[in-house]
Amino acid sequence: MKKRSFQFSSKTVQYYFDASFDLLEKIAGKERAVLVTDEHVFAAHKKKFKGWNTIVLKPGEAFKVQQTVDVLIDQLIDMGADRKTILVGVGGGVITDITGYVAGIYMRGIDFGFVPTSLLAMVDASNGGKNGIDVGVYKNMVGLIRQPSFLLYDYSLLSSLPLAEWQNGFAEIIKHACIKDAAMFKLLQEQSLPKFRKDKQLLAQLVERNVLIKTKVVLNDEFEQGERKLLNFGHTLGHAIENMYELSHGQAISIGMTYAAIISQQLKGFKEADAVMALLSRYGLPTLAEFDKKKAFKVLQKDKKKDSVSIHYILLEKTGKGVVQPLLFVQLEEIFKQF
Amino acid sequence: MKKRSFQFSSKTVQYYFDASFDLLEKIAGKERAVLVTDEHVFAAHKKKFKGWNTIVLKPGEAFKVQQTVDVLIDQLIDMGADRKTILVGVGGGVITDITGYVAGIYMRGIDFGFVPTSLLAMVDASNGGKNGIDVGVYKNMVGLIRQPSFLLYDYSLLSSLPLAEWQNGFAEIIKHACIKDAAMFKLLQEQSLPKFRKDKQLLAQLVERNVLIKTKVVLNDEFEQGERKLLNFGHTLGHAIENMYELSHGQAISIGMTYAAIISQQLKGFKEADAVMALLSRYGLPTLAEFDKKKAFKVLQKDKKKDSVSIHYILLEKTGKGVVQPLLFVQLEEIFKQF
Repeated sequence: MKKRSFQFSSKTVQYYFDASFDLLEKIAGKERAVLVTDEHVFAAHKKKFKGWNTIVLKPGEAFKVQQTVDVLIDQLIDMGADRKTILVGVGGGVITDITGYVAGIYMRGIDFGFVPTSLLAMVDASNGGKNGIDVGVYKNMVGLIRQPSFLLYDYSLLSSLPLAEWQNGFAEIIKHACIKDAAMFKLLQEQSLPKFRKDKQLLAQLVERNVLIKTKVVLNDEFEQGERKLLNFGHTLGHAIENMYELSHGQAISIGMTYAAIISQQLKGFKEADAVMALLSRYGLPTLAEFDKKKAFKVLQKDKKKDSVSIHYILLEKTGKGVVQPLLFVQLEEIFKQF
Repeated sequence: MKKRSFQFSSKTVQYYFDASFDLLEKIAGKERAVLVTDEHVFAAHKKKFKGWNTIVLKPGEAFKVQQTVDVLIDQLIDMGADRKTILVGVGGGVITDITGYVAGIYMRGIDFGFVPTSLLAMVDASNGGKNGIDVGVYKNMVGLIRQPSFLLYDYSLLSSLPLAEWQNGFAEIIKHACIKDAAMFKLLQEQSLPKFRKDKQLLAQLVERNVLIKTKVVLNDEFEQGERKLLNFGHTLGHAIENMYELSHGQAISIGMTYAAIISQQLKGFKEADAVMALLSRYGLPTLAEFDKKKAFKVLQKDKKKDSVSIHYILLEKTGKGVVQPLLFVQLEEIFKQF
């Protein structure tokens, strides 16, 4: 186990890398903790939850909505949860998003931490403090930026993960490579998904590398005034089509990254769009895709990163160097028409 | 108009005392502002809302619930509200609470300010950054602590206020006197509600004095680790019975203050419980009352200020000096039985 601390604006976050789930008892304590998980994670790791106060939610992005928040809050009241309670989200990104959000609003804010159980949650969703829920087709329309007290990374939890979930995680890993880390882009080109699944050492290094990339960006710009926007690479179009077509998050942003790479080619002289697409394919992710451009454009106009006439689109100057590019909607509409 | 700035943990709040509603155009701007109000306030001040984007909610504490939040968020999405939008709550405490809460969670937080239109909202609810909604019988069970950008006090808005609303406001004013300001307690004993309603100058001084009492307490302890708890004087029992009996907030905390004064007599040797009751009566507020002690005690056990065995009760050592007193539930139950 390797412990590291990072100081955010109003909270120090403890990262326990390469740790065991059992460590949770020392960190949170069975008395004051309430674990929040979903049916899949609970079924796959039933023994681990023994003796813990646990709330089990329905699994999947479709339940990342207010109704689930209502259910969770009612259960917390019934359990007598108070301001000394610590909520621990044990699950993928949906669980960590909902748990962090509810911890932020229950009794005007209680303590919380995460045990991410999916690759995507480990490298992305669980760290950085963003949480929230979807409203209709609009992803994360409601939420907070509020840091957890701790993150516990137990890589053995990944052993029950289906292939599609591994691909999901690699979409965010490739994103990090594209915007920040050309050397990791190369590493990913040389390695493969089956190799990472087999080689625990290689995987542990990869997870930690990605957590640190994201953490560094967030430390520089916790409330997304500048650099943090880069993490939205692939997410603008991605979010627009994710709920429209019931794509997984990884699939959606993979398509989003593909088109962002093509736009980068046109506007920034980016030369490696083909390499980006090849890498996404190598990890089982979709690239070019048919979608209703008019409808996607309409959803995109409600994106959080926009104002009335323009949107911040994340483009690539070169592999490993993302940039924030303000684009007028009229301009973007023209570009969309070509696809 | 008198402008003052106060620096909270992560925000400077501008207070515009004795200002005119028209100033709002300079502060917020009609382009980026969305006003949130209720049917009563809208009907009473229709002309003022002309030319402003306005969302009109149903009035009353019964609507300080998640369903209203859902409606408000859907309307903001429909209006195309984005991260540059500023929400302005124009109304009483219910409106400022909901507006502040929605501003805190919409798109993970947008700007907001308040124009309080009731005496209670002016002296209490609108300042200090606490916001939230009720869950079932539990008051403010969900919410945030997040400061507005500005507070605009236009005393002319109070002219349409019914008597019951004046009494509501005086309940919080008497609370401030009890816990912090013996001189104001004396002033209130000498003056009367009709006098404050008539004398604009006297009223303006009283509002400002109360805003500054509360602001000072909040500045010392924004996240309620210590001194801010004093502001809950009368609110522990008050909140428990408020939704149980559909009392106004002022009535509920007036009864709460009465019993807290009696407990103070027993545990702290407080000598002026009679004077507290007399002052509450002078301002048309109820004191001793019949209520279901068992049920109230049960609701109280879910209060935000409690842990599993005890609760922080606010008592008085003398007039103008409140103290935080941890009380065991078993102890409190015995005390309740005597009432």
